[in-house]
Amino acid sequence: MNKGMLIVLSGPSGSGKGTVLSEFLKGEDFKLSISATSRKPRPGDKEGITYFFKTKEEFEKMIDNGEFFEYAKFNGNYYGTPKKYVLDQINNGKNIILEIEVQGAMQVKASVPDAVLIFMTTPDIKVLRKRLEGRQTEPQEVIEQRLKTALEEVEYADCYDYLVINDELEQTVSDLKAVVETAREKTKSNLEFIKKFKGEI
Amino acid sequence: MNKGMLIVLSGPSGSGKGTVLSEFLKGEDFKLSISATSRKPRPGDKEGITYFFKTKEEFEKMIDNGEFFEYAKFNGNYYGTPKKYVLDQINNGKNIILEIEVQGAMQVKASVPDAVLIFMTTPDIKVLRKRLEGRQTEPQEVIEQRLKTALEEVEYADCYDYLVINDELEQTVSDLKAVVETAREKTKSNLEFIKKFKGEI
Repeated sequence: MNKGMLIVLSGPSGSGKGTVLSEFLKGEDFKLSISATSRKPRPGDKEGITYFFKTKEEFEKMIDNGEFFEYAKFNGNYYGTPKKYVLDQINNGKNIILEIEVQGAMQVKASVPDAVLIFMTTPDIKVLRKRLEGRQTEPQEVIEQRLKTALEEVEYADCYDYLVINDELEQTVSDLKAVVETAREKTKSNLEFIKKFKGEI
Repeated sequence: MNKGMLIVLSGPSGSGKGTVLSEFLKGEDFKLSISATSRKPRPGDKEGITYFFKTKEEFEKMIDNGEFFEYAKFNGNYYGTPKKYVLDQINNGKNIILEIEVQGAMQVKASVPDAVLIFMTTPDIKVLRKRLEGRQTEPQEVIEQRLKTALEEVEYADCYDYLVINDELEQTVSDLKAVVETAREKTKSNLEFIKKFKGEI
């Protein structure tokens, strides 16, 4: 069986990754990765569907064992991307998409060299500021912090395989599909070459 | 100052990497990386030009400190690619090309995510066999071992950014130049985007 593709999507908060991703997923054979968390399950949560639920102690042991591509703590609860789940899925031929911040993305690339890294952002920082301010849900100092983080994150864009500029939603979804298709074709043609080289075809 | 490019070239023994590389280097602003070795300097050797010469003990300490992308032992002497030299060069804006085997290449990619990985090989294993046998310098069992290693290495081709098939020398050199130019343009356009995003242009 052929291995699945692993797509890593990063980009600043406010770049519109979430919206683009949910549109993208409608027509594609990709699954979002499932995170582990130490927060208590809430009504509607399902083990292994919404999250993998762990106790704080279990989560910390997983951290010590290097079992996460990345993890973070929000409001006293841990959230992380388990390596094993992602690797099992791609080894079983499933295509996985990870929405993950830049440092975590570099970790993924180190573990899975044929992962495809896509960086999504707004055309420029002014557009990003406008989008973040447009939400009207966050105090100005949170917005300023996010913009500062965005400038730091964008420095990593050069380490990514593809850059997608999110200007207009429909166009961006179609750009993302084209990028994924290009990456898929490249992998396919490489795999065909490997077979041909070995005289299997 | 802009960072230099780091190109990593891998491919089976007999794929013609050496010949292609020396043709490529004639017209390009790239330097080969300099290896460290524990072998004794010979007439004509120059410290820091042909090799970085180390005692066996110094070399082993560098191994323990993780100072090599890769190292190997031939005829009782160590040879290795020092991380610090490569990173210093690219940080000083120099373009470096590393000829390195597949496991080492994966190490480089983990340390330097924007390194450009190029895999070079013959059109198929039969051509490789013909080239290795044509050398008439090696016993048959060495050739069989090299072919076996080649089949293992080619499996990694899919983890590389570009695949270059070495069929005819002149064409391959021109393909390699085109691949390097594409990678350079991609980096340049990414860097321009980063500046534009930040409102610097």
